[in-house]
Amino acid sequence: MQKKAVVLLSGGLDSVTVLAMAQAQGYECFALSFNYGQRNKAELQAGEKIAADYDVVRKVVSLDLGSIGGSALTDAEIAVPQTLGAGIPVTYVPARNTVFLSLALGWAEVLHAQDIFIGVNAVDYSGYPDCRPEFIAAFETLANVATKASVEGEPFKIHTPLIYLSKAEIIARGTSLGVDYRQTVSCYSANENGEACGTCDACRLRKTGFLTAGIEDSTRYAI
Amino acid sequence: MQKKAVVLLSGGLDSVTVLAMAQAQGYECFALSFNYGQRNKAELQAGEKIAADYDVVRKVVSLDLGSIGGSALTDAEIAVPQTLGAGIPVTYVPARNTVFLSLALGWAEVLHAQDIFIGVNAVDYSGYPDCRPEFIAAFETLANVATKASVEGEPFKIHTPLIYLSKAEIIARGTSLGVDYRQTVSCYSANENGEACGTCDACRLRKTGFLTAGIEDSTRYAI
Repeated sequence: MQKKAVVLLSGGLDSVTVLAMAQAQGYECFALSFNYGQRNKAELQAGEKIAADYDVVRKVVSLDLGSIGGSALTDAEIAVPQTLGAGIPVTYVPARNTVFLSLALGWAEVLHAQDIFIGVNAVDYSGYPDCRPEFIAAFETLANVATKASVEGEPFKIHTPLIYLSKAEIIARGTSLGVDYRQTVSCYSANENGEACGTCDACRLRKTGFLTAGIEDSTRYAI
Repeated sequence: MQKKAVVLLSGGLDSVTVLAMAQAQGYECFALSFNYGQRNKAELQAGEKIAADYDVVRKVVSLDLGSIGGSALTDAEIAVPQTLGAGIPVTYVPARNTVFLSLALGWAEVLHAQDIFIGVNAVDYSGYPDCRPEFIAAFETLANVATKASVEGEPFKIHTPLIYLSKAEIIARGTSLGVDYRQTVSCYSANENGEACGTCDACRLRKTGFLTAGIEDSTRYAI
């Protein structure tokens, strides 16, 4: 029987690459997206298109992280910065990956999937604490005491195939697997057509990635 | 300055006891409830009344755990059992406490609270894996690598003051702190008036607790 995996699919460049990698490894993938009050709704639409292209079941869980506040990504009162400063940026959403992985864990348990894929990255990342290898290791430990499935002998594995790759390497890997990055959205301030601003942290990382990989940047920019 | 704490408040007997204990310890409490697709909406109404009585800010986060499925508590297709069987029961909600604590962690970080209180219990409990001390220890470890706050020197502590208490001891402790249990709801199948069925697992544990504690059971039963 084909092994099942839950893949966190934001609709960004990284998560579609992870989905392509998980499929290439032979997993039957179940995509999980979140409507968490993010400014960037284009991301959700991208996730929908990608799930259809890859012919995977996709679930969108709604939860109001905006009500908790504390981030430029969910709070219209906090401006998205245009430059990468020192320290952890205001685009950090408190405990976001902890919440997302928890829900992925719950769904994985229901599906009898023991594998969860997430596109965190500890190289070209923005300094988020919940993208670090020690966070993932701690979550995997937690998952294996938290659930009925693990107690009954179905241990969970959290896969982070991008964690040590540069953005350029991610793009090269995805391109070799046939990923169409044109439909992905990375920009924190993408417009309703999914067009990117070209200047925020996420856009800069992405642009540099295509440039370094020597692959044509198919991103749709608004400017 | 008064230390802040996030207290998970379901509206049940255990969580109101925890709230009373945290307040008695001098914390400024922030109550967190979840509208997660549970059958038992009376619980949410109880939480609202309790938060008002204790004069604490309460946030209700909506998230659709029912869409993930797998539990009698969120899925109308799965019957709530009337007797405690062997093993982990069908009322187990996959990864529920992991999800709840993750959201509590996010809110705590925004509030600059370093203390989170949860009324899990490893004695008179129903066999849920995410009520065990090893689960709580693993979550605390996770919390302290997952967040900006912990990286910047504000470590989190997960408080479980009920974890080794019997239901009778919990009731005795709460009663000594003036808790009015009449307004709490424990029943998995409470009706819309918050009246308990008197026969489900949760009702049995509660009834026995009052009996053993020698404290009059003020629970409102439908039958």
